[in-house]
Amino acid sequence: MSTSQQDHGAQASPLAAAIAAAERIDGLLKSFVFRPAAYAAPVDATGPLAGIPVAVKDLIDTADMPTAYGSKVFEGRQPGKDAWIVAKLRAAGAVIFGKTVTTEFAWRDPGATVNPWNTAHTPGGSSSGSAAAVGAGIVDIALGTQTVGSIIRPAAYCGACGYKPTYGLIPTEGTHELAGSLDHLGFITSSVYWAAVAHAVIARDGKVAPPASPNAFAAGVKPRKLGVYRSSKWPGVQAEVQRNFDGAVRRLEAHGVQCVPVELGADIAELHTLINGILAYEARAAIAGEIAGRESLAGQNIRELIAIGAGISQAQHLEMLARLAALRGARDQAFGDLDAIVTITSPTTALPGLEKTGDAIFCTPATLLGLPAVTVPSGFSDDFLPFGLQLIGRGDQDQALLDTAQWVSTILPASRPAALA
Amino acid sequence: MSTSQQDHGAQASPLAAAIAAAERIDGLLKSFVFRPAAYAAPVDATGPLAGIPVAVKDLIDTADMPTAYGSKVFEGRQPGKDAWIVAKLRAAGAVIFGKTVTTEFAWRDPGATVNPWNTAHTPGGSSSGSAAAVGAGIVDIALGTQTVGSIIRPAAYCGACGYKPTYGLIPTEGTHELAGSLDHLGFITSSVYWAAVAHAVIARDGKVAPPASPNAFAAGVKPRKLGVYRSSKWPGVQAEVQRNFDGAVRRLEAHGVQCVPVELGADIAELHTLINGILAYEARAAIAGEIAGRESLAGQNIRELIAIGAGISQAQHLEMLARLAALRGARDQAFGDLDAIVTITSPTTALPGLEKTGDAIFCTPATLLGLPAVTVPSGFSDDFLPFGLQLIGRGDQDQALLDTAQWVSTILPASRPAALA
Repeated sequence: MSTSQQDHGAQASPLAAAIAAAERIDGLLKSFVFRPAAYAAPVDATGPLAGIPVAVKDLIDTADMPTAYGSKVFEGRQPGKDAWIVAKLRAAGAVIFGKTVTTEFAWRDPGATVNPWNTAHTPGGSSSGSAAAVGAGIVDIALGTQTVGSIIRPAAYCGACGYKPTYGLIPTEGTHELAGSLDHLGFITSSVYWAAVAHAVIARDGKVAPPASPNAFAAGVKPRKLGVYRSSKWPGVQAEVQRNFDGAVRRLEAHGVQCVPVELGADIAELHTLINGILAYEARAAIAGEIAGRESLAGQNIRELIAIGAGISQAQHLEMLARLAALRGARDQAFGDLDAIVTITSPTTALPGLEKTGDAIFCTPATLLGLPAVTVPSGFSDDFLPFGLQLIGRGDQDQALLDTAQWVSTILPASRPAALA
Repeated sequence: MSTSQQDHGAQASPLAAAIAAAERIDGLLKSFVFRPAAYAAPVDATGPLAGIPVAVKDLIDTADMPTAYGSKVFEGRQPGKDAWIVAKLRAAGAVIFGKTVTTEFAWRDPGATVNPWNTAHTPGGSSSGSAAAVGAGIVDIALGTQTVGSIIRPAAYCGACGYKPTYGLIPTEGTHELAGSLDHLGFITSSVYWAAVAHAVIARDGKVAPPASPNAFAAGVKPRKLGVYRSSKWPGVQAEVQRNFDGAVRRLEAHGVQCVPVELGADIAELHTLINGILAYEARAAIAGEIAGRESLAGQNIRELIAIGAGISQAQHLEMLARLAALRGARDQAFGDLDAIVTITSPTTALPGLEKTGDAIFCTPATLLGLPAVTVPSGFSDDFLPFGLQLIGRGDQDQALLDTAQWVSTILPASRPAALA
């Protein structure tokens, strides 16, 4: 009998709990490519992340753990120093828990990670291991990167929260480039609370204080008016994804939030063509040289991407960057009197099989415009795969978006109906 | 920053957490009719429930708190002693946290409790407050009673687990009778683990040890073969309840569990007619005298029930009891080589409005036959109302059913995809 008390009383440390969870399930989940045999004490025992295990996507350098970008070409590579973001997290007291599976160079060739809600399905990509590790409850915070939809989509597929900050908020120094004009660092977390803590840690002006506690952050900030973004691609969206989104909008309206249709930037098809063009050009520039002479070690998707990039001229790239600059310059125009914009995370739930990591098109607008985006869990499909609801905020207004997302999360089913606040 | 540590490190006691949650949300939720101003220390600080707050349906006597059966006739009534089950829980270390709203005499006239997932919807009944308090996360364990579907249905509507033991397992001494041939005491819990702990505490042979810890219980026992009970009432079941159940069966099959159609006892329409007849006769016998001369203080539903009961003769009652005995005598026949039977909990999710507590017909077979039943959360509707999956076990095989239910809960979305085990 006293044994059951051990579970109710003295709580295992977050690190000990994460180790136990990883040992129990990661053999099946395969979310980590590396975990150290032992962990040093946090450098700051009073920081906002003191003792909190944080998983790091294997695209991001760690001075004490290998970093191979999901690529056979870089197998066993040991960086000499931490990436900026890793050093920042360590300084806040975080314990770097291990390196998580990334698709090859954060593009489409998948790793071995499976979806924690159905191990026959993809976890999404490219931050596959970070999303699965958080979705399965191993850690509360994992680092990811997003160049099109690589944080928001896998987070949603794995039932986690995802937070892609405003473009440029987190320096990418020490993070492998896929496409510098588009790459974002961000977080996959077990709740919006942890995303808000992470945001406070990385916000560069030092003016953002972390929430004092989960309870202090619990209520969030209720929006008055939200834009509802369905886009011209809506007819191709899976019926149950449509139903789930429509239900979320009804739920918001039932809580007195005004919801109005909105467009964002330009037609989504144009945005997607633009993002793919920039990405291919920049990815070729970043990666072709790295794998030169060892192409046979590279996956088919990355080789195809490089080939597409090779067909794009510098002039075309500059032209695309000009269009990008124009779109980003006007990126807040869609908002008007809206507090935020809601949309889906992907046209489907997590697909069966590990080959395809899923369609990122509904992540394109926020990524291309560099707007902050958050996904919160939004229930489950008939086959019990998680849905996510994506919220997009004004540029540089990450804190306001996180506050809104927290409130929205309280009216959607997650682990608890905290909605009564 | 160190403030956030307070949330990660030293954990508030379960009692302190429950008090804080109740103070924060119960003004809106209205799950409690009474909570004491202060709590005494547990009588056994090492028992399996030491320090665990347990909410008690206001149909069940408590020596230190009023017990009014949800009836104006009994307003302010203070019992002289604890009900058997309350004493048993206290002896195991439980802290009786308060009295939860019951519909009037555990029949249909509703109390003020709202559903924690949508406060405009019913929590179900009759154990309305117990289900809402657990579903909202105030307590992990609450006592309920079931005469038709009063544990399983509200538990499912509120996103909680529900456990109705084999008929007779828990003595009803000190619990107000609705229909003695049908009344069951049982538990609404935040997880199957807590139901298993509760079962170990109340199992009368003293031979059942509680699970040593949540981890020790986490895997459950995977069934080999399950019966799938849809019954002749299936065509009237809400389309999304059908879809959810079909999805759950697919999920079970995908995990290698053989699923075969099954019938249970007799046609469900006959079972429902029988249960309603017995209930009306016995409820009149139990309650008519109690409210005699004060009928104006009673609700319409209970008065109608008494009127129906008055139209049933003793001979008819005895005839119905003979049929009940025959059904109960053969209650395990449907199982054959099945490990358990799965079915829905209700033809709908929680209805809008508080007037109607929902349709209990899919709870009738297990209640009438006296078979143990468990509901586990099974995702959410398009309007984000919880579904439950009901499992029914062989008579007196409660532990086996709880073990099966635990495994099933790991493959369905609850708070965590523990499914990887």
